[in-house]
Amino acid sequence: MVKEVDHIGIAVKSLESVLETLKDGLGLQPSFEEEVSDQKVRVACFKIGNSVIEYLEPTSPDSPISRFLEKRGNGVHHIALRVNNLNETLESLKNKGYRLIDEKARIGAEGKKIAFLHPASFDGILIELCEY
Amino acid sequence: MVKEVDHIGIAVKSLESVLETLKDGLGLQPSFEEEVSDQKVRVACFKIGNSVIEYLEPTSPDSPISRFLEKRGNGVHHIALRVNNLNETLESLKNKGYRLIDEKARIGAEGKKIAFLHPASFDGILIELCEY
Repeated sequence: MVKEVDHIGIAVKSLESVLETLKDGLGLQPSFEEEVSDQKVRVACFKIGNSVIEYLEPTSPDSPISRFLEKRGNGVHHIALRVNNLNETLESLKNKGYRLIDEKARIGAEGKKIAFLHPASFDGILIELCEY
Repeated sequence: MVKEVDHIGIAVKSLESVLETLKDGLGLQPSFEEEVSDQKVRVACFKIGNSVIEYLEPTSPDSPISRFLEKRGNGVHHIALRVNNLNETLESLKNKGYRLIDEKARIGAEGKKIAFLHPASFDGILIELCEY
């Protein structure tokens, strides 16, 4: 069951510029910054109410975020929905014929269990499911 | 002050396909459907926790959503942040030199006060601010 919009992941060329804009313009400070080496990204998260906006800057030209930026420029890369039964949800989606990027939950930033669904099965939108 | 991610606006070619996918795949039902004639869109909203995912399908080739779809295909069109002092926030942004699409709040779907900020000043991301 989907409980919450956990976060929105936004690909950007420069985190520095975003940090400056959001602080100066809207008074927002990042609650969390991290380099996720296996995804080759640097991440800055802004906690807003019950959700988080996560900005992702690639740290290498072969990061998935670099490829996204080349094609589309800065923009929303994925939407993450919080569920309370991630592996069951993945199993159920798979049985119904939906394409998954991750067939089993893996561990993402901050130790969350996460899995990505394939945009081809979700109207072109990259959806991440996560569970704490 | 930014209080909450109010909603995420996603442009899609076919609402019917999204409604089917989200119901069958993730058990999500729309909480609200509306045709917003001045924006030339049909809207279906899914309430998820404290946020809403708003899918927008154009009803005319000259809808702003049609232009977005032509350039980028299905994808996130805007992120809406809930604030408690919309006109003051707009005034402050304007005084700091940020570009705004709407310099004053106007009335959007469900009677909310809304205003769009210009992506050129916000790292390429279209941000809507809204107040209830």
